[in-house]
Amino acid sequence: MSSLQAPSLATLIDWFNRLPGVGRKSAQRLAYYVLSMSEEDAKMFASAITEAHQKIHRCAKCCNLTDEELCPICKNVKRDKTIICVVEDPKDVAALEKTQEYSASYHVLHGVISPLNGIGPDQLTIKELVKRINEDNVSEVIMATNATAEGETTAVYISRLLKPLGVKVTRLAYGIPVGADLEYADEVTLIKALEGRREI
Amino acid sequence: MSSLQAPSLATLIDWFNRLPGVGRKSAQRLAYYVLSMSEEDAKMFASAITEAHQKIHRCAKCCNLTDEELCPICKNVKRDKTIICVVEDPKDVAALEKTQEYSASYHVLHGVISPLNGIGPDQLTIKELVKRINEDNVSEVIMATNATAEGETTAVYISRLLKPLGVKVTRLAYGIPVGADLEYADEVTLIKALEGRREI
Repeated sequence: MSSLQAPSLATLIDWFNRLPGVGRKSAQRLAYYVLSMSEEDAKMFASAITEAHQKIHRCAKCCNLTDEELCPICKNVKRDKTIICVVEDPKDVAALEKTQEYSASYHVLHGVISPLNGIGPDQLTIKELVKRINEDNVSEVIMATNATAEGETTAVYISRLLKPLGVKVTRLAYGIPVGADLEYADEVTLIKALEGRREI
Repeated sequence: MSSLQAPSLATLIDWFNRLPGVGRKSAQRLAYYVLSMSEEDAKMFASAITEAHQKIHRCAKCCNLTDEELCPICKNVKRDKTIICVVEDPKDVAALEKTQEYSASYHVLHGVISPLNGIGPDQLTIKELVKRINEDNVSEVIMATNATAEGETTAVYISRLLKPLGVKVTRLAYGIPVGADLEYADEVTLIKALEGRREI
């Protein structure tokens, strides 16, 4: 089979196949699509990849991805710098910003503590977070890592690290998603919802 | 939201979003993945796109994609050149080759007749097919376009065009897929299966 494919086509399929969630068949479809683009479009697509890679780096303060020294949120003087919401990924910042309800700052860890995958606290941006606590008179750190075992471990690790610095550490509330049926909620979510119950 | 994204990141997300089957969320995930690649890998990915685009073109004979003058199948002297299987896409050649049961040649139309999408016979490689019939002493043309309305129309159109040239035109058999349950077959497939019944 693969002997029939031109080497440069096979190489392109291999590259698409390396992307997350792209299987062999999809990779083939994407590669054929690229071949059907105009030459100019293909060049622009290719240069979009190299350009984004060259220009985008971590914000000097919150470690979110940006093409400037500081990201737009860290540069914005209206955002409260004394409250920091700690998330795993840049995508989580995007999700929280969509709510338009949060007006303080973020800190992007770029992962979670995961001994199985060989990721310890040193590979995350925890040092940078501690530095901010000391510099910016931070009053509260909201741990918004995912509700997974690893996200939980990371939240506990960071809260133990920060408490001696005299900063309040909170965690996002976990429970039944709005609009969902009790009947279909998994047990762990139900336990979390019971634990987190509030007076009405 | 998008004002928070660096322009070069937004551009890259847009490009991925243009690929078939890649929605906004997946495009974001793919773009972040590209940013997490090493710089060398990102450059190689980008050059795989431009290189494939520059090198790959249509085979001078069968119009399949290749990086040489003739594709490996057309160059192969062992393949029967008097039988031509006509398919819509290069992907279809790959699917038929996987069976390892077909040892003649192909012709890739690069589409189907689709008036709704403004695609007429002239945009397909029908001219090139007719030229081969005249040149290569072709005895049979197997129409293997998809079993859709457009694939069917294209098969009928081409068979009417070729019959005056004294060539036998056949169509792939349609019916119940092997291993499938009668109960779940759609009506049109069942009708095709009844029409195409054979004595055992």
